[in-house]
Amino acid sequence: MADMKKVAVIGWGTIGSGVVELLYQKGIPGLELVKVCDIDLETDRGLTLPSGMLTNNWHEITDDPAIDIVVELIGGIEPAKTIQMEALSKGKDVATANKKLLAKEGELIFKHVLDLDRKIGIRASFVGAHSFIHELGLVGSESKVYKRIYAILNGTCNYILSKMTGEGKSFDEALKGAQAEGLAEADPTDDIEGYDTENKIRILLGLITNSYRYAGDFPVEGIKNIDVQDILYADELGYSVKLIGVIEHFNIAYDVAVHPALVPTMSLLGSLQGAYNGTEFEDEYGVVSGLINPGAGKYPTSDTVIKDLLDIAHGRPLPIPSSPGEYRLGSPGDVHRRYYLRFSVADQPGVLAQITNIFWKYNINIAAVIQKEASQKDYVPIVMTTYLAREGDVQSAIKEVNMLDVVKAETRILRILDAST
Amino acid sequence: MADMKKVAVIGWGTIGSGVVELLYQKGIPGLELVKVCDIDLETDRGLTLPSGMLTNNWHEITDDPAIDIVVELIGGIEPAKTIQMEALSKGKDVATANKKLLAKEGELIFKHVLDLDRKIGIRASFVGAHSFIHELGLVGSESKVYKRIYAILNGTCNYILSKMTGEGKSFDEALKGAQAEGLAEADPTDDIEGYDTENKIRILLGLITNSYRYAGDFPVEGIKNIDVQDILYADELGYSVKLIGVIEHFNIAYDVAVHPALVPTMSLLGSLQGAYNGTEFEDEYGVVSGLINPGAGKYPTSDTVIKDLLDIAHGRPLPIPSSPGEYRLGSPGDVHRRYYLRFSVADQPGVLAQITNIFWKYNINIAAVIQKEASQKDYVPIVMTTYLAREGDVQSAIKEVNMLDVVKAETRILRILDAST
Repeated sequence: MADMKKVAVIGWGTIGSGVVELLYQKGIPGLELVKVCDIDLETDRGLTLPSGMLTNNWHEITDDPAIDIVVELIGGIEPAKTIQMEALSKGKDVATANKKLLAKEGELIFKHVLDLDRKIGIRASFVGAHSFIHELGLVGSESKVYKRIYAILNGTCNYILSKMTGEGKSFDEALKGAQAEGLAEADPTDDIEGYDTENKIRILLGLITNSYRYAGDFPVEGIKNIDVQDILYADELGYSVKLIGVIEHFNIAYDVAVHPALVPTMSLLGSLQGAYNGTEFEDEYGVVSGLINPGAGKYPTSDTVIKDLLDIAHGRPLPIPSSPGEYRLGSPGDVHRRYYLRFSVADQPGVLAQITNIFWKYNINIAAVIQKEASQKDYVPIVMTTYLAREGDVQSAIKEVNMLDVVKAETRILRILDAST
Repeated sequence: MADMKKVAVIGWGTIGSGVVELLYQKGIPGLELVKVCDIDLETDRGLTLPSGMLTNNWHEITDDPAIDIVVELIGGIEPAKTIQMEALSKGKDVATANKKLLAKEGELIFKHVLDLDRKIGIRASFVGAHSFIHELGLVGSESKVYKRIYAILNGTCNYILSKMTGEGKSFDEALKGAQAEGLAEADPTDDIEGYDTENKIRILLGLITNSYRYAGDFPVEGIKNIDVQDILYADELGYSVKLIGVIEHFNIAYDVAVHPALVPTMSLLGSLQGAYNGTEFEDEYGVVSGLINPGAGKYPTSDTVIKDLLDIAHGRPLPIPSSPGEYRLGSPGDVHRRYYLRFSVADQPGVLAQITNIFWKYNINIAAVIQKEASQKDYVPIVMTTYLAREGDVQSAIKEVNMLDVVKAETRILRILDAST
């Protein structure tokens, strides 16, 4: 075939094996695998490649003028960044699953792609969602704006929270279970601290604003401080606790955050079990759509890499952020949200009055209260949900509440997101 | 602009108004609205068009050599069929939201498009889902097969079932509410009998098999016989009752049906509230993805029509079924499913034994039983769920059970679909 594109894969891990299998064993019309690079060429990947196809030196790939597309599947910042930059400089196109690099150095990579008029495929950062964003939002045009995105983007966290909810496990127990099942890494920091979700939210923000600019930091909170009792109280109130990436467009700014939140149990996000990803989009007309996708895994991910390769080969990759843009991040304190609050208080008269007086001062209105009869413990929990309140006011009120003599432990605060589907 | 495409809209109803608004008022680069046809040109649509742009004679559009793309939004079989066929014959491309025509006469329309090497946009039949199907399934290639699709494709039915579930309303009350809210038509037959879902499932089947062949009928059952007590028992068992379109690929055949079914409450489909559509796909690797979309409505639908117009203008419409194919429909009696059964029996000893003896004979195993203490009624309900059983065996067993003296009314049978997300 005249139009055959020569493809090289750098990084022969789980996803790399999937891509190699599809290209070399199954065979994809128009794409020819010519080189595979990894520092480890010994491990058995279940298929044998001709030894001439293997290398442990990635320069053999970036320097080879015959190679059209480089698939970077190493992950992390270096050497992945240098590999992508060099491949592009030498006239090759790139496909990658590297969320961290695209989030942290997207400005550098995307600008380089645009300056050189090259192509990059980044579908694998979302496993399927990139195309969906494009379909819904006419990415790259001015004609449509997203009002709101709520997203569960980390399968490990969702698996852990599902186990805590369904089986009443503690966070530590659920994490160990996830590690035993191969769903969490030995070092789970990136997942449970919310950094992986942060990376995906940053890429998403670039796609919907069409800007490759890195516009400062936003609040990120993980799930390791989630207490099983908050999950149970949330359930009683009709909510599930999930790790949510939030992008909301208010006036001229985007409020962006990653944090655990209560979402209605009977909703796309609230009902999502196990290691899935889920995203809910609301457009400028208030039209809501949602997507559930695997988010990770050998075949789902390698399949999206192949789609990128085919799109590049056909000369029509999905759009990428293409301008330095001017989007603005809102100030976290000014966001209005609903809140779930759990106070740990002494079991004595007048406590509720002291708390509600402080709330009254800060214009915070209470939507629901749960106070159970005291057990043998020396303090009792009081759980409240609020109506919409300014985040800064809630923070100030809780600071005052925490200083009350009758309050025996830090008040637990979780946001409530009333998703639509 | 040299590449400006001239567009005419036939059918100026709700969707038509949305399309006209977007093309004429908002303005879409590359697309010029030149003609709008409707039998009613008097009704106020909230915007004034130049009188030269209006006609009540669609031949003025199909006969006009200057028009590039005809948007058919009349719906129904005729004159929509003749309009589309003539427009194509006269060298125009077509975009349409006409589910019924594409389902019933898809063979004629798609073959005509392919024979003449023209283009047709059918995104509006699914509001967004067409692109998703394409993204997930590599439609038009041989490289991926869907194992399973479960879909809620009719917003009216889902709204009615949600109201019956959430507010304990009867079917008739919920239907009246939906009509009052403008969510159900005065004649709701197409929706509540399942015909609208049938049409969408047939189009979907064409897309995933890449065949435009009309391959016989499949079982279709609507929701009007759903009893609120079955919804309540289902809830007790952890399931929601939904109208589901089912496509499953077993061996060489597709099992296709539309019917009310129990799906797990904590799942994409089971948690779907109100007038939304939801679709769950499982590919050949067992990878599951899901989509929630509005399914209908002025802006969601007109927006998808615009996307089709842009794709046609850019010369790259989404794929359509392109071969006469050879897919085969399975025999309904051979399908293995789980079942929910509600028996109405006399409150006397030995009833359960009589029923379970019949089940035993037909190799039907019971997963759960609910029998409550008798009220003042002359019969009591017994609810059972089964493990996987052959549909034909279940039908035979129920026939025998219904003939028992102690059985006082027809046994209610609903399928159970254990969705994955």
